[in-house]
Amino acid sequence: MNLSRPALLTDHYELTMISAGLRDGTAERHCVFEVFARRLPTGRRYGVVAGTGRLVELVRDFRFDETEVAFLRETGVIDAETADWLSRYRFSGDIDGYAEGELFFPGSPILTVSGTFAECVLLETLILSVLNYDSAVAAAAARMVTAARGRTLIEMGSRRVHEEAAVAAARAAYLAGFGYTSNLAAGQRYGIPTAGTAAHAFTLLYEDEKAAFAAQVAAQGKNTTLLVDTYDISQGIRNAIEVAGPDLRAVRIDSGDLSVLAHQSRELLDSLGATETKIIVSGDLDEYAIAALAAEPVDMYGAGTAVGTGSGAPTAGLVYKLVEVDGRPVVKRSENKATVGGRKLAVRRHKPTGTATEEIVVSQGMPEQLPHDRALQQSYVVGGEPAALPTLVESREHLRQCLISIPWEGLKLSGGDPAIPVTIVPAG
Amino acid sequence: MNLSRPALLTDHYELTMISAGLRDGTAERHCVFEVFARRLPTGRRYGVVAGTGRLVELVRDFRFDETEVAFLRETGVIDAETADWLSRYRFSGDIDGYAEGELFFPGSPILTVSGTFAECVLLETLILSVLNYDSAVAAAAARMVTAARGRTLIEMGSRRVHEEAAVAAARAAYLAGFGYTSNLAAGQRYGIPTAGTAAHAFTLLYEDEKAAFAAQVAAQGKNTTLLVDTYDISQGIRNAIEVAGPDLRAVRIDSGDLSVLAHQSRELLDSLGATETKIIVSGDLDEYAIAALAAEPVDMYGAGTAVGTGSGAPTAGLVYKLVEVDGRPVVKRSENKATVGGRKLAVRRHKPTGTATEEIVVSQGMPEQLPHDRALQQSYVVGGEPAALPTLVESREHLRQCLISIPWEGLKLSGGDPAIPVTIVPAG
Repeated sequence: MNLSRPALLTDHYELTMISAGLRDGTAERHCVFEVFARRLPTGRRYGVVAGTGRLVELVRDFRFDETEVAFLRETGVIDAETADWLSRYRFSGDIDGYAEGELFFPGSPILTVSGTFAECVLLETLILSVLNYDSAVAAAAARMVTAARGRTLIEMGSRRVHEEAAVAAARAAYLAGFGYTSNLAAGQRYGIPTAGTAAHAFTLLYEDEKAAFAAQVAAQGKNTTLLVDTYDISQGIRNAIEVAGPDLRAVRIDSGDLSVLAHQSRELLDSLGATETKIIVSGDLDEYAIAALAAEPVDMYGAGTAVGTGSGAPTAGLVYKLVEVDGRPVVKRSENKATVGGRKLAVRRHKPTGTATEEIVVSQGMPEQLPHDRALQQSYVVGGEPAALPTLVESREHLRQCLISIPWEGLKLSGGDPAIPVTIVPAG
Repeated sequence: MNLSRPALLTDHYELTMISAGLRDGTAERHCVFEVFARRLPTGRRYGVVAGTGRLVELVRDFRFDETEVAFLRETGVIDAETADWLSRYRFSGDIDGYAEGELFFPGSPILTVSGTFAECVLLETLILSVLNYDSAVAAAAARMVTAARGRTLIEMGSRRVHEEAAVAAARAAYLAGFGYTSNLAAGQRYGIPTAGTAAHAFTLLYEDEKAAFAAQVAAQGKNTTLLVDTYDISQGIRNAIEVAGPDLRAVRIDSGDLSVLAHQSRELLDSLGATETKIIVSGDLDEYAIAALAAEPVDMYGAGTAVGTGSGAPTAGLVYKLVEVDGRPVVKRSENKATVGGRKLAVRRHKPTGTATEEIVVSQGMPEQLPHDRALQQSYVVGGEPAALPTLVESREHLRQCLISIPWEGLKLSGGDPAIPVTIVPAG
């Protein structure tokens, strides 16, 4: 379900390049573009491919209506020939790439777009916007899931990021293994379970905390979460159990030293007979804060700002580069010499135990396939038509399996090298 | 022009609170919520209010259609009474706040929302999403504008952020004083001038650089910008002038040590007679990199990633807090004691020379007005109806004037205290 028209979510220069290329016919040359990261954010050991499912729908809807073409004409961005071409535009090429939930490393060709220069270059901005944001969120969220060691995570960062980015962030966090989101649009669009009960404002609305808790329990029953830190946490917990009884599902603590408070709260709940009542903590949690609570009696984490902003790496650093023109490999000469032209195929190599050891990326050829290799690319779009894709739940399971497969050092939160090396084999 | 339906861009708990409050009537209590920042991002000296113009349109369109209500009912988020209430929902309260382009500091009440609890709490998530993102971008962009010392800036970061966030970022950067954006949707929706000519891919598409330059000049004339760093920059500049002649408008350099390259390129251009040809530089520029180029012969900067991601502060830290219920000030007791309940009015105090000295914020009362004080709040929505707002160009000029008015230390890029203090006067 796309809610906005994607065609103008595009950089001006994509259209001036098309205008120039259409005049002399070069815009019709067959090209291959690849999306990859030159490096991971500082200290990160893997990236997570996310957003491709969303992207395929946007590519399908990428058409210019009369108003958009008129805007481009009137502002002088395009000439008459380009206006005519755009009004008939529909991507008719192929898109292949790594599955959503797949890990990537510097040089992994995570998306390959082939077709004429014009039809492919036109998608550059949108492709990078979607993949850079969603992958940044998914990578940060995956680290939080690792840090949570099996405890459930709730994504609640919508208010910290652009309102539509929030929906994409909820999707990427769920892909990464979060259990719930607070974002209702993500629930509607993607079927992600949503969660939420009450804010401090609800408690402040009533004469006292007990009245607020009573109103909440009257509406939602005991299977709810009472927020106990509006005034005094110990008294809040006593009030919660007094009002809801020891069968209350959960309390939430959103401030203070969560490590100390979780411990004290557990003891107090147990002393009140609420031994099954869960403790949910929230408040500026990132992967490090979550890891620091591993030994505390916490049942669930709410994470917000750090999810939607990529926990220090708000964009994934993915670029979209022309690698082939009419079958000829091309490369920008002045850049890092490691860049290799030509369309690439990739496999991930594993030990017989299933542990990944290396990624092999071959330009203009087939990688040798060893027994435990896994080919990394799948079809997303064939001749302009979207291919059948895994569900979001399947992609989520795929990522879970990928994270099991990397060497254990790759799951450390501390800074270090990529979990596995990528070997790029040039053409010829 | 809103392109998506905003009602579900909302946290689940806003609706469970409304459900609970409607059962006992408390949801109809008259409330005042305020948006403010407890602190600025580390080292920042001011915040910039941005997004309110966008927000007012979203509030106007904030309605629940049948599909949305059905989704909320079927998933058990709301009960039947709340479903009925939501299907009739339309914000009927008042929204006041600081103008777009106004500066803010810790404690500045930048937005005040009043009405029933239910109608106000429902807007919390959307209000914070819009203001947190747009203000984060505007503050970073304003620092870049200061660093550029009058030279023109082009926002070209769309590909680094969520595709819809990119449009909001272009708007916020223009508000902050950028001259152009690469984002076409921002051009269409907000009338912001767009710019762009060609990427490295365009040069790679042709047999050689001169052929690519010739194609671009044939399409766009000499009043274009040739990207000269695909192969060798010196040869690129020679090729550019050979093809376009010394009247070429500009060359762009997107890689390498821009300081050295700008200097060498200026000398080379001058030696080729292209003394009027401008030099545009781009490539991971933030406010510090821009400042470092102040003495170099650069004419224009292209800034991308750092703009859309807030240059290290991707969210503005704004919160939405209930401060008054039926005229009674309320405050969450366990937090920082500096928090003051009650609806607040704000003025900025100035020296007779026009330099700002202090912000005075009074709870439940009128600030004393001295001769050079300026009241900071204006009407955005009155009784549910949007008020007349300044244009984006007017808001841009307002910010420019505000930045002139703060003490000069406030414009330093280095870390430090807020440019002026905020004095909050409690009620009574």
